[in-house]
Amino acid sequence: GNGSKKEGSHGTKSSSTSKHRKGEDKGRTRDGKADEKVSNNQLAVPPLSMEGSKSQRAKLAFEDRVCSADHYLQEAKKLKHNADTLLDRFVKAVCYLDAVVSFIECGNALEKSAQEAKSPFPMYAETVELIKYTMKLKSYMAPDATSADKRLAVLCLRCQSLLYLRLFKLRKDSALKYSKTLTEHLKNSLSNTQAPSPGMGNKAAGMPSPVSPKLSPGTAGGYSTVSNTSSSVTIPQRIHQMAASYVQVTSNFLYATEIWDQAEQLSKEQKDFFMELDKAMGPLIFNTSSMTELVRYTRQGLHWLRLDSDLIP
Amino acid sequence: GNGSKKEGSHGTKSSSTSKHRKGEDKGRTRDGKADEKVSNNQLAVPPLSMEGSKSQRAKLAFEDRVCSADHYLQEAKKLKHNADTLLDRFVKAVCYLDAVVSFIECGNALEKSAQEAKSPFPMYAETVELIKYTMKLKSYMAPDATSADKRLAVLCLRCQSLLYLRLFKLRKDSALKYSKTLTEHLKNSLSNTQAPSPGMGNKAAGMPSPVSPKLSPGTAGGYSTVSNTSSSVTIPQRIHQMAASYVQVTSNFLYATEIWDQAEQLSKEQKDFFMELDKAMGPLIFNTSSMTELVRYTRQGLHWLRLDSDLIP
Repeated sequence: GNGSKKEGSHGTKSSSTSKHRKGEDKGRTRDGKADEKVSNNQLAVPPLSMEGSKSQRAKLAFEDRVCSADHYLQEAKKLKHNADTLLDRFVKAVCYLDAVVSFIECGNALEKSAQEAKSPFPMYAETVELIKYTMKLKSYMAPDATSADKRLAVLCLRCQSLLYLRLFKLRKDSALKYSKTLTEHLKNSLSNTQAPSPGMGNKAAGMPSPVSPKLSPGTAGGYSTVSNTSSSVTIPQRIHQMAASYVQVTSNFLYATEIWDQAEQLSKEQKDFFMELDKAMGPLIFNTSSMTELVRYTRQGLHWLRLDSDLIP
Repeated sequence: GNGSKKEGSHGTKSSSTSKHRKGEDKGRTRDGKADEKVSNNQLAVPPLSMEGSKSQRAKLAFEDRVCSADHYLQEAKKLKHNADTLLDRFVKAVCYLDAVVSFIECGNALEKSAQEAKSPFPMYAETVELIKYTMKLKSYMAPDATSADKRLAVLCLRCQSLLYLRLFKLRKDSALKYSKTLTEHLKNSLSNTQAPSPGMGNKAAGMPSPVSPKLSPGTAGGYSTVSNTSSSVTIPQRIHQMAASYVQVTSNFLYATEIWDQAEQLSKEQKDFFMELDKAMGPLIFNTSSMTELVRYTRQGLHWLRLDSDLIP
């Protein structure tokens, strides 16, 4: 069921990247290890000499002008298609994250523009998928992971975390409403099912159930209920669907905190880099930083990663 | 079902405060408005003259020494019992928040001490209740709410938010596990219930249900199922209980973000005070600040509130 998700606004990704390249890259990990190491070495950041020499990295200038969602979408697609053609896994990952940032800008433009009737939700959700794909290119947990790999991973994780948080926030109001209804329902039905069973005397079809009498005042008799053992519970379909939505919305938040903690942990291994980045851009703050702040922080980080790896002449 | 919750570690609160005083205070709001106004005026912070004069407030010195949980508990109870005897609502609220901070210190000591086998969960949960009670004493939304009322409310809300977040974090691992099981279960059962109904042919007791065939491999026949209309769903009791726990754990997080946002909003109305407090103590950060940082921030804020209101000679 993963394939159907990919056919959204990230366009050709599904065919050219998610499916085609994924297979190709997996092959390379196993069969072309030497090849990968060579390209790594070409770009490798000398871990120690770097620490001394990076004292003053250039700061990018950011425009305050906000363009149309479509402008960012075109830019993002261009960046992603360019990344699709690259072979070196690190460079490719850097370029994908660049595309990710433009997709985030696009989602943000959708949120801010009163004209845009489109929800940013699918855009953000697919961008999370692109980040997951990007992170598979270079594992920061591999024994030969370089400082640059880890720095890139921190940037990826922070984007992923704040996107999950944004996905949660976009549906937070429903979650709060569901939370109340579900708490009420589950309290009633749990206390009823935990009471001594009245036996099977009420199995007659159409008889109102003792399981959740307060929850379906309009549908009494609409469903029979109560299993013949205490190991199952019958609930109204709308409660069941609400529970499914609730779990979906809140799991975005669970992932957000989980991934944020991972990023924090990993950034401690690259303290100097992120202290300098925090100082230049202001630190990213969970539950506070805006999408614009995330975009700028990540762009600046990517720029430094490129500078450090001599990817910019 | 509210009364039973109160008989925990916060001790005499339930009898002397929650029940007795609550009634007393409610009476006063309705019958003794004049009385309340008088005490307000005695403590009122002149909203404009204050702004100029507070440039350098004294900073408290905090010890790094951590005492035993019991030490903080005794301190907290003493502070709370003292607050119980006070009549002025603002002063009373300030003193209750002081007790709240000591209860938080107690919970924090429970978390940090390897010797303590006690979970800090009930301590934090009851402390949230004490904050709720404290906030009812002086509404920051009342038309006659003073700057001091609002500042106190911000401190209360931030404590409440970070306690809810802590309650969530203490059970986060279960939530993540539940999230996976529930997502899997709900996906299966939803897709099954949404398929065209096979009619009522399988109502025979003991027959495996088409609703969630994958979820109870060991209990086939343990529950019959499927209602006679499409408006209800039968789920295993353990899934039902898991859903109840999941909703409970995650609602703590929902409240945490909701209340954090309220505090942020309200603190903007009291910008100077909180900019100075942030500068002195470092700002509180959602999902990052420790309980110790919360304790110190709040203590410092309370100290300034007392200074500003001439509660300290």
